[in-house]
Amino acid sequence: MKAYEILMDIALIIISAKFMGLVARKVKAPMVVGEIVAGIIVGPCLLGLVEPSEDLSVFAEIGVILIMFSAGLETNLQELKKSGLMALVIACVGVFVPLAAGTGLYMAFYGFGSVGSEKFFKALFIGCIMTATSVGITVEALKEMGYLKGRVGQTILSAAIIDDIIGIVVLTFVLSMKDPSADIGVVSLKVVGFLAASFILGFLIYKIFKVVDEKYPHTRRIPIIALSLCFVLAYVAEEYFGIADITGAYIAGIILCNVRDADYIDRKVNVNGYMFFAPIFFVGIGLKTSFKGLNGEAVLFCLAFVAVAMLSKLIGCGLVSKCFKFKNIDCIKIGAGMMTRGEVALIITNKGLSLGVIEPSISTAVILLIIVSSVVTPILLKYLYSRSPDPAEETAA
Amino acid sequence: MKAYEILMDIALIIISAKFMGLVARKVKAPMVVGEIVAGIIVGPCLLGLVEPSEDLSVFAEIGVILIMFSAGLETNLQELKKSGLMALVIACVGVFVPLAAGTGLYMAFYGFGSVGSEKFFKALFIGCIMTATSVGITVEALKEMGYLKGRVGQTILSAAIIDDIIGIVVLTFVLSMKDPSADIGVVSLKVVGFLAASFILGFLIYKIFKVVDEKYPHTRRIPIIALSLCFVLAYVAEEYFGIADITGAYIAGIILCNVRDADYIDRKVNVNGYMFFAPIFFVGIGLKTSFKGLNGEAVLFCLAFVAVAMLSKLIGCGLVSKCFKFKNIDCIKIGAGMMTRGEVALIITNKGLSLGVIEPSISTAVILLIIVSSVVTPILLKYLYSRSPDPAEETAA
Repeated sequence: MKAYEILMDIALIIISAKFMGLVARKVKAPMVVGEIVAGIIVGPCLLGLVEPSEDLSVFAEIGVILIMFSAGLETNLQELKKSGLMALVIACVGVFVPLAAGTGLYMAFYGFGSVGSEKFFKALFIGCIMTATSVGITVEALKEMGYLKGRVGQTILSAAIIDDIIGIVVLTFVLSMKDPSADIGVVSLKVVGFLAASFILGFLIYKIFKVVDEKYPHTRRIPIIALSLCFVLAYVAEEYFGIADITGAYIAGIILCNVRDADYIDRKVNVNGYMFFAPIFFVGIGLKTSFKGLNGEAVLFCLAFVAVAMLSKLIGCGLVSKCFKFKNIDCIKIGAGMMTRGEVALIITNKGLSLGVIEPSISTAVILLIIVSSVVTPILLKYLYSRSPDPAEETAA
Repeated sequence: MKAYEILMDIALIIISAKFMGLVARKVKAPMVVGEIVAGIIVGPCLLGLVEPSEDLSVFAEIGVILIMFSAGLETNLQELKKSGLMALVIACVGVFVPLAAGTGLYMAFYGFGSVGSEKFFKALFIGCIMTATSVGITVEALKEMGYLKGRVGQTILSAAIIDDIIGIVVLTFVLSMKDPSADIGVVSLKVVGFLAASFILGFLIYKIFKVVDEKYPHTRRIPIIALSLCFVLAYVAEEYFGIADITGAYIAGIILCNVRDADYIDRKVNVNGYMFFAPIFFVGIGLKTSFKGLNGEAVLFCLAFVAVAMLSKLIGCGLVSKCFKFKNIDCIKIGAGMMTRGEVALIITNKGLSLGVIEPSISTAVILLIIVSSVVTPILLKYLYSRSPDPAEETAA
């Protein structure tokens, strides 16, 4: 393929992604769903204008790296410290209940696998996909109603952020077990080693970066250095530790989330992201989607997957909230707010697909989960708040 | 190569490009020269940290497309209409004298080739490389002295813009003759057809785009639609007309240079450009640079190339300016201002290399030309203005 030949593919991808993204927003669905649908439309499934290719997958990978970097950058560590133990506990339960439920679901469908077997690993990976809450939709719904600053809203927000961090750590553990011959001790050592090293080194980098940032604020070199750090950490994670590159990118974001220009970096990275790389990732999922393998059992699994993923968050986070003296209905609000899934679930799914851990049909289930959870959550929240308005409502406006 | 493996390459490229670009600026050399040097340092020539690869060349190609699109976007058609005939004539002479001189130089070194022969085509291509003035350095020098708004400064600026347009047309003609069996009549028809079609269609696109732009100013969709247009035109030019993709990108820029958000589009495109794609292009030239083929004759050719490229602009533009009632010293100023070469010369060289028309050693000559012209021009201009300050000086501050 000559270099220029990719231009038409990219043009079709970015314009269809934008168009379908806007359509999705019009019908109150998440924009990523629109972008995936764009991929299904222009891809082999329907029109056949764009084929998945090697070159496009490089762009998509960079898109994923940028999304995870941006997610890390947007983490507010100060805010987290304040919300403290409560959010931490809710997040932990919100990670481990879906993890267990997803693992159980897979085994219920496809048979039991003992610890260490390939089947066990697959089941665990399905659990992993269920862990990551994406609160974008929830935040929008709460903002619209004016309840985001209330106690429930803030709890959801903090728990969702911690949820991401724990989710990434869990994913990292699970992924590093992909080699069945790997010693779980060695694997754990590697993961802990990487996390420890990157946080110690990260602290140093943070200190150095802060000095550079304060000397040359808002100059082009700041986002460029930041981006290089992100790419290097992503590469090092994958190449030397056998850890997913997305983990490296996310950690790079967390390392830099407290520098003064974190916002500026995020903005610049986002311009790159939204114009090229991120749409290529999401549309790429649509391109690779195929409805051919969908037989009766697969459809049933999809539906069960969606139900389990949503209920495990709702029940897990809801029940544990009860320990923190929330009213019953507020517990349900918290559980409902944590149900939404988005980009991160897709990114984890894609990782599993490219490693050959899971079947392509799973991505259909994940897309369905994103659509259903994004539609159900706002409706449920609206209903719950109409029954019992948050007392902190006044401070919200 | 796995997708993540390119991350380290990109990180090394963007960080070394930024660093060496800043060093270049410190010593008053053009930043692109710094970026090329970065490529020589990290590439096989010296450290061997990054190898040229297929994937990188896709990024580089997109970089070139974005640079040409941006060049088109920054064209000020109103300004051009005002400057009128004078700038047009100076630009024409400034294109055709170097074109002829470059063709002659190659033949003087490597023997005469009759019209239509491969040797003739090679010689003509060397001439093409010499045509494109990049006034960035000149503009900066004039701005610094406060003479940019003077008559001489404005003449240089307008002539340089028209020079780009004529240069692209000439390049398009020359490139479409690359197939020696091609009928010159058919080739001309294709080129004229493409230019005519894209300007007529362009006018329609412009009208439609203007409506969209005025309805949704400053929204993300504007640069995305613009970029898609650029990619589509680049692809169509190359795929269906056998015309360089850079011509398509440049024309897309000119089509949109008059919409209200042209600046906004340019800014967004530039963020993409400067962070990823453009550095990968310029560093890529350094990566591919090799000093192995440089024997005595090649070195001599390099030096002659630089001298001819500079003198042909100086003498050509200088002499023809005399027809427009400039003082002798002002004619020299105009000629000197038109001498600088930059990105576009590199892009044309790269095109020739990838088509196998010219030898890799030419790119060394072009890099040398960029360095020498960027150093000599500001010094010469400063000297000339110190001898004879522009009477319009006051209006400049």
